[in-house]
Amino acid sequence: MTAVKDSVHDYISLDPLAQDLVDTPEFQRLRHIKQLSTVRLVYPSANHTRFEHSLGVYHLASQALSHLGIDGDRADHLRAAALLHDIGHGPYGHQTEHIIMRHTGLHHDEIEWLLTDPEAGHPNGEPATQTVRDTLVDHGLDPERVAAHVRGEGELGQLVSGELDVDRMDYLVRDAHHTGVPYGTIDTGRLVRELRYSAGELVLDEGNVQTAESLLLARGLMNGIVYRHHVSRIAGAMLERASERLIARDDTVDIATFQRMADHDLLVALREHVPELGRRIERRDLYKRAVWADLADVPVDVVDCSHEDERAAEREIADAAGIDPIEVVVDVPSRPSLKESNARVVVGGVVQRLEEASELVGALRDAERAQWRLGVYTKREHVDRVADAARDVLGVRLGRTE
Amino acid sequence: MTAVKDSVHDYISLDPLAQDLVDTPEFQRLRHIKQLSTVRLVYPSANHTRFEHSLGVYHLASQALSHLGIDGDRADHLRAAALLHDIGHGPYGHQTEHIIMRHTGLHHDEIEWLLTDPEAGHPNGEPATQTVRDTLVDHGLDPERVAAHVRGEGELGQLVSGELDVDRMDYLVRDAHHTGVPYGTIDTGRLVRELRYSAGELVLDEGNVQTAESLLLARGLMNGIVYRHHVSRIAGAMLERASERLIARDDTVDIATFQRMADHDLLVALREHVPELGRRIERRDLYKRAVWADLADVPVDVVDCSHEDERAAEREIADAAGIDPIEVVVDVPSRPSLKESNARVVVGGVVQRLEEASELVGALRDAERAQWRLGVYTKREHVDRVADAARDVLGVRLGRTE
Amino acid sequence: MTAVKDSVHDYISLDPLAQDLVDTPEFQRLRHIKQLSTVRLVYPSANHTRFEHSLGVYHLASQALSHLGIDGDRADHLRAAALLHDIGHGPYGHQTEHIIMRHTGLHHDEIEWLLTDPEAGHPNGEPATQTVRDTLVDHGLDPERVAAHVRGEGELGQLVSGELDVDRMDYLVRDAHHTGVPYGTIDTGRLVRELRYSAGELVLDEGNVQTAESLLLARGLMNGIVYRHHVSRIAGAMLERASERLIARDDTVDIATFQRMADHDLLVALREHVPELGRRIERRDLYKRAVWADLADVPVDVVDCSHEDERAAEREIADAAGIDPIEVVVDVPSRPSLKESNARVVVGGVVQRLEEASELVGALRDAERAQWRLGVYTKREHVDRVADAARDVLGVRLGRTE
Amino acid sequence: MTAVKDSVHDYISLDPLAQDLVDTPEFQRLRHIKQLSTVRLVYPSANHTRFEHSLGVYHLASQALSHLGIDGDRADHLRAAALLHDIGHGPYGHQTEHIIMRHTGLHHDEIEWLLTDPEAGHPNGEPATQTVRDTLVDHGLDPERVAAHVRGEGELGQLVSGELDVDRMDYLVRDAHHTGVPYGTIDTGRLVRELRYSAGELVLDEGNVQTAESLLLARGLMNGIVYRHHVSRIAGAMLERASERLIARDDTVDIATFQRMADHDLLVALREHVPELGRRIERRDLYKRAVWADLADVPVDVVDCSHEDERAAEREIADAAGIDPIEVVVDVPSRPSLKESNARVVVGGVVQRLEEASELVGALRDAERAQWRLGVYTKREHVDRVADAARDVLGVRLGRTE
Repeated sequence: MTAVKDSVHDYISLDPLAQDLVDTPEFQRLRHIKQLSTVRLVYPSANHTRFEHSLGVYHLASQALSHLGIDGDRADHLRAAALLHDIGHGPYGHQTEHIIMRHTGLHHDEIEWLLTDPEAGHPNGEPATQTVRDTLVDHGLDPERVAAHVRGEGELGQLVSGELDVDRMDYLVRDAHHTGVPYGTIDTGRLVRELRYSAGELVLDEGNVQTAESLLLARGLMNGIVYRHHVSRIAGAMLERASERLIARDDTVDIATFQRMADHDLLVALREHVPELGRRIERRDLYKRAVWADLADVPVDVVDCSHEDERAAEREIADAAGIDPIEVVVDVPSRPSLKESNARVVVGGVVQRLEEASELVGALRDAERAQWRLGVYTKREHVDRVADAARDVLGVRLGRTE
Repeated sequence: MTAVKDSVHDYISLDPLAQDLVDTPEFQRLRHIKQLSTVRLVYPSANHTRFEHSLGVYHLASQALSHLGIDGDRADHLRAAALLHDIGHGPYGHQTEHIIMRHTGLHHDEIEWLLTDPEAGHPNGEPATQTVRDTLVDHGLDPERVAAHVRGEGELGQLVSGELDVDRMDYLVRDAHHTGVPYGTIDTGRLVRELRYSAGELVLDEGNVQTAESLLLARGLMNGIVYRHHVSRIAGAMLERASERLIARDDTVDIATFQRMADHDLLVALREHVPELGRRIERRDLYKRAVWADLADVPVDVVDCSHEDERAAEREIADAAGIDPIEVVVDVPSRPSLKESNARVVVGGVVQRLEEASELVGALRDAERAQWRLGVYTKREHVDRVADAARDVLGVRLGRTE
Repeated sequence: MTAVKDSVHDYISLDPLAQDLVDTPEFQRLRHIKQLSTVRLVYPSANHTRFEHSLGVYHLASQALSHLGIDGDRADHLRAAALLHDIGHGPYGHQTEHIIMRHTGLHHDEIEWLLTDPEAGHPNGEPATQTVRDTLVDHGLDPERVAAHVRGEGELGQLVSGELDVDRMDYLVRDAHHTGVPYGTIDTGRLVRELRYSAGELVLDEGNVQTAESLLLARGLMNGIVYRHHVSRIAGAMLERASERLIARDDTVDIATFQRMADHDLLVALREHVPELGRRIERRDLYKRAVWADLADVPVDVVDCSHEDERAAEREIADAAGIDPIEVVVDVPSRPSLKESNARVVVGGVVQRLEEASELVGALRDAERAQWRLGVYTKREHVDRVADAARDVLGVRLGRTE
Repeated sequence: MTAVKDSVHDYISLDPLAQDLVDTPEFQRLRHIKQLSTVRLVYPSANHTRFEHSLGVYHLASQALSHLGIDGDRADHLRAAALLHDIGHGPYGHQTEHIIMRHTGLHHDEIEWLLTDPEAGHPNGEPATQTVRDTLVDHGLDPERVAAHVRGEGELGQLVSGELDVDRMDYLVRDAHHTGVPYGTIDTGRLVRELRYSAGELVLDEGNVQTAESLLLARGLMNGIVYRHHVSRIAGAMLERASERLIARDDTVDIATFQRMADHDLLVALREHVPELGRRIERRDLYKRAVWADLADVPVDVVDCSHEDERAAEREIADAAGIDPIEVVVDVPSRPSLKESNARVVVGGVVQRLEEASELVGALRDAERAQWRLGVYTKREHVDRVADAARDVLGVRLGRTE
């Protein structure tokens, strides 16, 4: 077995299938997609990529399978899914997911097309010696079954995508290591050891309510301090607007090309074709907050508005403020959810959902809600004008800049 | 400035006063008092002592003072208090605090007697070249003022003992480093940078509700997973009973000698004079849980019972079970409190108590309550008999062994 | 003071000058230049950039100055130099340094042109609000003096570029953190504390022969295991050849544009304009070793050959093997040197050069020599033919593939 | 499988035999023997014990066996030996090894008597429910075979005691973690993966000359900076003298009792029975260096003198200085050796001893020689008189206090 040195898990042993999958162009592309997209503009050490994250998820999946006593064909399919779970991501990962979704109807974890279409694995349209699909087939695996695992389907699929999945475990500790913010450092060793199956459901064994809570708390703290830091959100929203403009042009990239780009491709394309935003992102010369409003201060129809409503509001605000629409970004995050609250834990011999077993889940849900913010961003010199216009247009009550 | 290498904070620079204080017998004694007493029986790497913890608290206090812009005489007194804050501990720290309290009326942070009585600083009754008191006076410091800071009095005293004190910050990260349990790893760098004074109160500056919550959450997780692990509680309760028996004997140690013992002194004394328990503690041959009951299953008068009630219950249970009273330990922890909930945080320019600013405090209080357990411990072979007797005597409803 | 969270040094406090310098386009560009260029193809976690490395060097310089008791104007200039020491790097850092040197005659640490020409700080030819030069002048600093420090000139300049410089200290620990290879983890805390000036020379104080040796040993081990790993060398040599071809084309980039590119610019340009190599680098589809020869097995005139000789040999080998010259890479590293051997250490009150004070320096020099390898790389299918041709052309004796 | 949380290796899984061995009094005693004895007086965080070190050695042995493909009965015996390899240590480990050797003729790794005599496993003469010997027999293992492995005998024994043993790997990383000195942090993951057997000899596979060198270098740096720090040596020499006096008394402890003591037993016994030294050790009120001489400055017959010569010299020096012999300690370390230089490495397909394959071994041997120091220690007030007397008596040339 070959081994790769990882800064988080030390050596990661790769089985022959994994070695071959790692060598495909689809997987190598992940070297060029940063795990935390624009977070590196706040935490400059956070340059890690989906490549090493995917190796880490594969590693934790292997450990979990071993503790669960699962091997053979079932384990092979699951390990492949763990390794490949992120190859469906577009450039800058989650940051372009909504765009790709609106154009293709597909989430990043819906990769059946990539795993079954013989032409799919060729980024930039060029021929590749060996695609992921070819590799799976050569090793006797069923690509559709792997794709189903990536979507979280089936008993084993929960390990890759579910409330107690190894994806989450890896990204929390890895993001902590690379940002320097300690709160993501959960006890992965204990988590993978305490997983069990109960009636087809993945659960944490007796005595682990706190282990499950720690997952929730780690994500809660990382959300506020890292993932949703306002500087990263501003840069991300600017990137999304710039990407939309890029795709909207006739002469540049279509969505099929866009979704197979890597970070560096997009950065160069934006600088060339949407320079007003592209150059700013490249140089961290970002818009500032004109509005930063609590959930309580935002009308409910604004909170739940569609993408088109958001864009229309930008135009309306720009119009009222007398500036170019490209200079206004309205950023309405979706309502907070708490997927981990459905994690299952054995308590007194009975399987319970974490929100039944833990006093903390409800409070964390409230805390997530309290951290929700609507943002309107613009150039520093337009902040006051945009703030006034945005309050009128959106009906936001306060809109303070914290 | 001399510097000491520390496994947690790297180099700790000591000013001349600190160097001299470190050389006193009272401070050197802390080398022989483990920070986590019986926790090392669960987490074998947790052998760190109050010596290096005290250096760490001194270090964080120096950093906080520097960020707060406080220097001169005020800073000198506070730094001395930070360094000395634990010299009042008896052997095995908190584990013998109740015993010493019952005999002397003093908590471990009431060290005025140690800092003012010229005879006090002589452990084991022998002469010392230079006591802590002498050293403070030689350097022009007022021992009473230092003692007041250790008790948490005054504006500066909050830094050493308060809701946002550096004692807590050091022990959380240090205990995490030495147990290997990651949850105590808080962001001390941010905490000491964000401290401010507002109307004489120590507060965390704007934007730090989550920073404050992280302290609370870290302690909550460490409580359940480390500090109150049942094996450590059993060993601790056995140690307390053994110590009481040691003191109760006429011919061994009086309370004045006892409270100046170090861990190794007590361990040898218990093995010699209370061998039934002493040998067991030394070899981790511990009693087992006969009863382990939730707050909801324990009558309220038992929850709030006195030390004498506890001892009486032990005798009664032993009698009912037909065994020697030394073979029964009743362990009723005090009701959970959440001191950090009073930490002050600036929110929107206004100072708030954390429990007003955070959705999590209430839930953490509930979670603490949910983790509370009454324990009754005995030899493995008596578990069933003692369980039955204990239910009768204490009126505990369930008493399951989780 | 603003502070930046760093995964290596925790919080790095930035003074107002540093804050303004960080915001310039020249410095922001460093976000897009990886510290270890092609090493990430071997150690996938090694994606850190010269941006955070430069912050780290600034941080260590600040600490060293503080321990040395240097402040005011002198310290301001040195700290600025520490922060800016890498802004002269081209894309992929050292990997393109020889190319830029051949065209411009300038090493990466010769940045006087960047700091004095008002037009220089505008990457890609566009106007920037505020360049590094403007910022230095606005804060009352002398750009030429800063440039001199970056070159290592003057008493203070040794701190930034010399045998005991903080640049080396930061990159060793940072590269260790990000590769996961522990050997670079030196004791920076001790190193910055033990620096002294003796007759204008930076020295390590009494008792630090081993501290100085540790720097040497760390670099020796990191050289062999990380920096000169053959996979990274192959990719690096391919990148250099591709870059030369890119510049040689009339219609693409001139050297002035090239040297201001960032990694992503070069990667995209190579894929477009030199696809035979560019695509391979992007996908880690690398050439293999046909020859890998010890110093003892290589004729001395080959070891000391010029760049033109190297290129000519490639053409000759390709010709002999009947393949395209782009498919052969001859990679002759320069003779090993050991700059740290001149580090000065106080021994028995006398300043000595490390190679006088340490038994290890000579052996490390031998070890470096023993690790030297000439490589000839080609496509997997041509390895045998190229090996034969290369032996004839270069007169290399053995050429084994280890 | 039960798992123990370790601060160095995270979770250590224990097989049923290991669980039972851990519960024996002989193994529990290791909780009370510090790994680095008096080093904690210099590095206050270094309080780790031979208990967790032994678990770590067991863990690395398990990993190595798994990579080597060795299981079944052979692996069981080896794992048991790894776990038990230190149970033969006296109080304060190596610090009392010479004393015990002189009285019993046995090194700490000669534990056949402990594993075969049914009475041996009863520290302090009391009965134990279950000794190590009983446990091994109950699990079907041969105690003599385990004892042979501990001595390093046989093919597998090299894994526990040899040039590439897992004992060394664990203590280097563990001592680094607990002192905070980074130099011991070797790449244990790579070391255990690259072990092979070649003609019955344990070797490191091709490509690992530097891996082997790293072991040597790590030990070299840790020797100078940690293990042989002069403060630790002074305290250690005082402890040894005090222990000799303790044993020499008729009325206290015989050698059989002495060698089964734990650290706390010895500390209390020394304070009571040899208070002139015992109290000083307890409070770190240590003697100072009167002489500190290089190998070149010490007559060869002094370097190679016997224990009796050393003691006689102390008396002679004390006499010449007009002080009590207990106030003079002569500390002549044995000549430096470099066991790791015999480690075997595969180079170009051939097994070589490291000193043949590495340029560094010779230099490290020289460096070790250069670090050798003879010390003579006494009370601060006698330093000058003792220095003069010691030069006369020992014929030491210079004797400077560095």
